Amino acid sequence: MKLILASSSPRRSEILETLNMKFVVVKSCVDEEKIQAEMYKNTPAELVGALSKAKSHDVALQQKDGFVIGADTVVVLDNKIYGKPADSTALREMLTAFSGRTHQVLTGVTITEASSGKFVSSVAMTEVSFRKVENEEMIWYEKNANYRDKAGGYAIQEHAALFITGINGCYYNVVGLPIHETLKLFHQLDIDWKEFLLNG
Amino acid sequence: MKLILASSSPRRSEILETLNMKFVVVKSCVDEEKIQAEMYKNTPAELVGALSKAKSHDVALQQKDGFVIGADTVVVLDNKIYGKPADSTALREMLTAFSGRTHQVLTGVTITEASSGKFVSSVAMTEVSFRKVENEEMIWYEKNANYRDKAGGYAIQEHAALFITGINGCYYNVVGLPIHETLKLFHQLDIDWKEFLLNG
Repeated sequence: MKLILASSSPRRSEILETLNMKFVVVKSCVDEEKIQAEMYKNTPAELVGALSKAKSHDVALQQKDGFVIGADTVVVLDNKIYGKPADSTALREMLTAFSGRTHQVLTGVTITEASSGKFVSSVAMTEVSFRKVENEEMIWYEKNANYRDKAGGYAIQEHAALFITGINGCYYNVVGLPIHETLKLFHQLDIDWKEFLLNG
Repeated sequence: MKLILASSSPRRSEILETLNMKFVVVKSCVDEEKIQAEMYKNTPAELVGALSKAKSHDVALQQKDGFVIGADTVVVLDNKIYGKPADSTALREMLTAFSGRTHQVLTGVTITEASSGKFVSSVAMTEVSFRKVENEEMIWYEKNANYRDKAGGYAIQEHAALFITGINGCYYNVVGLPIHETLKLFHQLDIDWKEFLLNG
């Protein structure tokens, strides 16, 4: 059985690699910004659900068989979605918003069976608490962290670990792919996840 | 300023490396089993506190200057401490105990200033929830995971991620060194943690 990851995120690949899973990456051609613009009245959970479905279905249509994982992650505070910061000003706004507070990280996951088009979908939520971040720490972060390609401008497993006091929920959701939720989806499809392991 | 990690745990080194910290590793010669045996009536928190202090002080005594981090991690369920499983039977007992339940991971951290002997210490606690682990998953785990050198027989960032539904608290505490707690200790010593960064 073939496992296909419909995401070019190196972090999502790393999670599956760490778990010894056998998979291929096929990037979707979904216009994410268009979907975001259309769904501006929907909740963040509805948005990540729709984006994960769009990515998963787009790749499934190109494949004869296999199971296609699509995922989308956003950072949410006070019902506002924080995407990837375009520049240092946007980053500064995000860090200032997160400083001393708890925000939510939501990941939508959809798995589609390419041969039948059958799919299952769910959304995982993890709370992430930041300590107060000082001004000079923000300057240090801006200089040293690769923040541009990351929702909310941070990766929990990199420099921002220094700002995080704790999380509540799935760690891998914050990295980009909630493992436990993904296994539950395979279970819903009556698929044994161990089929995808490199060493059986 | 010199940062010294009094631990040969590759996972603790990796955490500091990921955060771009400049440090050296000096292993302590503390007889951990002796301390454990002496403290069998104490709480798990008192035990990890004492072990982290013993490691930090032992290395600090060999150094002229610098700050020495000592740490010790245990896994606790129903007030019982789960150490490193010696064999597959011990591993099986641990996984069976953790299956479908929430246990605690405690890490004691002590930082000692080598020149003065001044030290600060604290204990971090994170709750880790396992889903129900099936018998054949335990067999798979035993074959594929390196469990022998790990408290509770698992590393949250490796194969056991497949069994974990969520955590509550610091992720890095479960890996072996609670970053936020460690920074707070430096703050108590009036030390700016940024002094230890590779790129200032």
